[in-house]
Amino acid sequence: MSETKILLTEKEMPKKWYNIQADMPNLPKPPLHPVTKQPIVPEDLSPIFPMELIKQETSRERWIEIPEEVQKIYKIWRPSPLIRARRLEKALDTPARIYYKHEGVSPAGSHKLNTAVAQAYYNKVAGIKRLATETGAGQWGVALSQACNFFGLQCTVYMVKVSYQQKPYRRTMMQIFGADCIASPSNKTSAGRQVLEKDPESLGSLGMAISEACEDAVSREDTNYALGSVLNHVTLHQSVLGLEAREQLAKVDAYPDVVIACCGGGTNFAGIAFPFAYDKIVKGAKVRLVAAEPSACPTLTRGYFGYDFGDVAGFTPLLWMYTLGKEFMPPGIHSGGLRYHGDSPLVSQLVHDGIAEARAYGQTAVFQSAVLFAKSECFVPAPESSHAIHCAVEEALAAREAGESRTILFNLSGHGMLDLPSYEDFLAGKLEDYQLPEDSLKEALAQLPQI
Amino acid sequence: MSETKILLTEKEMPKKWYNIQADMPNLPKPPLHPVTKQPIVPEDLSPIFPMELIKQETSRERWIEIPEEVQKIYKIWRPSPLIRARRLEKALDTPARIYYKHEGVSPAGSHKLNTAVAQAYYNKVAGIKRLATETGAGQWGVALSQACNFFGLQCTVYMVKVSYQQKPYRRTMMQIFGADCIASPSNKTSAGRQVLEKDPESLGSLGMAISEACEDAVSREDTNYALGSVLNHVTLHQSVLGLEAREQLAKVDAYPDVVIACCGGGTNFAGIAFPFAYDKIVKGAKVRLVAAEPSACPTLTRGYFGYDFGDVAGFTPLLWMYTLGKEFMPPGIHSGGLRYHGDSPLVSQLVHDGIAEARAYGQTAVFQSAVLFAKSECFVPAPESSHAIHCAVEEALAAREAGESRTILFNLSGHGMLDLPSYEDFLAGKLEDYQLPEDSLKEALAQLPQI
Repeated sequence: MSETKILLTEKEMPKKWYNIQADMPNLPKPPLHPVTKQPIVPEDLSPIFPMELIKQETSRERWIEIPEEVQKIYKIWRPSPLIRARRLEKALDTPARIYYKHEGVSPAGSHKLNTAVAQAYYNKVAGIKRLATETGAGQWGVALSQACNFFGLQCTVYMVKVSYQQKPYRRTMMQIFGADCIASPSNKTSAGRQVLEKDPESLGSLGMAISEACEDAVSREDTNYALGSVLNHVTLHQSVLGLEAREQLAKVDAYPDVVIACCGGGTNFAGIAFPFAYDKIVKGAKVRLVAAEPSACPTLTRGYFGYDFGDVAGFTPLLWMYTLGKEFMPPGIHSGGLRYHGDSPLVSQLVHDGIAEARAYGQTAVFQSAVLFAKSECFVPAPESSHAIHCAVEEALAAREAGESRTILFNLSGHGMLDLPSYEDFLAGKLEDYQLPEDSLKEALAQLPQI
Repeated sequence: MSETKILLTEKEMPKKWYNIQADMPNLPKPPLHPVTKQPIVPEDLSPIFPMELIKQETSRERWIEIPEEVQKIYKIWRPSPLIRARRLEKALDTPARIYYKHEGVSPAGSHKLNTAVAQAYYNKVAGIKRLATETGAGQWGVALSQACNFFGLQCTVYMVKVSYQQKPYRRTMMQIFGADCIASPSNKTSAGRQVLEKDPESLGSLGMAISEACEDAVSREDTNYALGSVLNHVTLHQSVLGLEAREQLAKVDAYPDVVIACCGGGTNFAGIAFPFAYDKIVKGAKVRLVAAEPSACPTLTRGYFGYDFGDVAGFTPLLWMYTLGKEFMPPGIHSGGLRYHGDSPLVSQLVHDGIAEARAYGQTAVFQSAVLFAKSECFVPAPESSHAIHCAVEEALAAREAGESRTILFNLSGHGMLDLPSYEDFLAGKLEDYQLPEDSLKEALAQLPQI
């Protein structure tokens, strides 16, 4: 029997990130200034991002060097293992070979640290002393706290108040790494104070926390803003995922028929899929790329393709993407990391052009697959990642149906150690499945900005 | 710069466990029957353990084959990485080289799975259908649940009621893997019912839970009992830790001056230290072996060396070990896994004979080192494992004092993802340090059985 884990040595780690903007048949339309509605220029972004990240945002270079300082930190947990899910294959009685990339081994518990380290590094080099960001369930806040700690940057995280109260574990993680974790809306920003004046009991939202973090960053010379998903430079940093996985599969003479990841802001999917999208676009590889999203927040499967804001208040540039409308408020599903109204413009464009595809799943089915995975492979996955698992299960059953030994690759983007209350609810039969009525979507989409 | 992680391939994994009973200058005196006070014979144990484990308990064979089925499961996470703690070295400004074995990568989150898988396997082969065990904080219960799930065994875990209520995360983990997790004292056993009759609000204790699990196992033909620490066969299974670490260090031409682990029941320490104890006893290696325990439960540093029961009720055989007396109730420190009145007889004997040594630490100092480790190495350690970290820090500072480039190896026995509330207390300045008054120890030791 061949090996269970396919490992790379640190020497085999990618030295460059892959930038899909070099190879896309169609690039997304450019981001527009929120006020002038004209394409933004680098100077528009320089109050909140360092110039190196702004350059990466629009770069057409295929390969971008990973700085040595970033590589050194990656080596704490990278290259992450690629694991053959033999017991899951057996449980499904499928001829398919299922491989998963295990990003839960990172000290942050998810893939988010790949870009957090890079972002903290470029800000440090640019002389920035402090980063401000927002976080929903807390995964991104934890990753950025750890990254800032590495480079001696201060870190302030505006955490959506309802999560701040309900998820004290992740808040404590941030505090261990020295970050200042503030419940949002807060009285630290005028955006926060405005909300609190109207509703002192407000539980906050991701859109509101983004507004607070941006205001914080704009108002202080020593402070920049950092975003954990959506943007092009974030997809770039996550490409280590797919680059490693392709190398690992090559070691066992395998190549995927399908590559799967869950999709919220899109950079986890981008990370594993873009290097294979290169194979598909440039070399004609016959690989399918599937983004798995919650049916309660079906951005790619039921959203509108066009310009929209990234936040509720409309402070951010307008992005060309699939969107459910910035006012869209998804129900409180357990995959907090997938509750975003928009999506990465690069992922959106690839889906629009038929290079990638998307599927949406209800959370009960997702948790069923999560528990099947845990009982087979022993690792308890994050609810977000379990969307990818469920899609892989679906693909494995289709392979059985077809009698074909297909190769399935998916990204296990994070572990579920801090999501066990969600499992408790699932095991107790307390999960609800949400199917959005057509009307509520129409309403949200009707409010899209007219460009 | 050389590599951060030192990895072994699956092919380099140990094929045999190391049994220190082959090499000890003095073996502990034999376990005695709790009633007759005569040395126990294998038949005494056969109602609760399979014969293979009973044989391992007294075997003098130096090497015992790891069954192929067990190796296959080990490969899900083993060999675990050995990591050079370069940032911790830098933070301490020490010439010492610090390496840690990272057992937190196991799906159970700790080293406990190494023996859980082996025990479940031998029970399965012996035709047993169900295992009963007890758990305090829940680490062992999680590991045994996962192991039973692999081999299709039912699993019932008696979890100390106070932990059952306060630590729902670990209870949910057990339930995901199909285990039946019961708050102890329960009405499922006569031992439990007796306690509940006297005190319906009893919060339970580990000694009580052991009594319930043993009664359950004795009373059903299809059921055996499993113990996560203390016993000789458990130390045997954990020897993969030290065997791997020695191999990994050899890859970078290193050999430890000191090997460190935390010590509760002793098998985590045994696991990493015994292969080096072999070098010391048989080959004269100059390596120090240090067990780090809590000063609130100072079994090795302040306990009595002699016969004592393993449980409160006095159902178990009498073991020859360091003990604080079975009635000893340690204060509620955050390292639940180290709150045991006794210790592995093999570890106890080696400490008594001066081959290993022990040190005790207060929890505030331990958490200080835990946070220093997290901020340096990024992984958040379990409070138990942090005793080893604190000892490693002490050793690294001593090396600096001496101006010597010593090599320090410690076992990071588990991650702290489910222990974050303890960190919250520490960060809020709420931890208390307990120093046991001499009187309370004297009282407990006065109640030791007279043999």
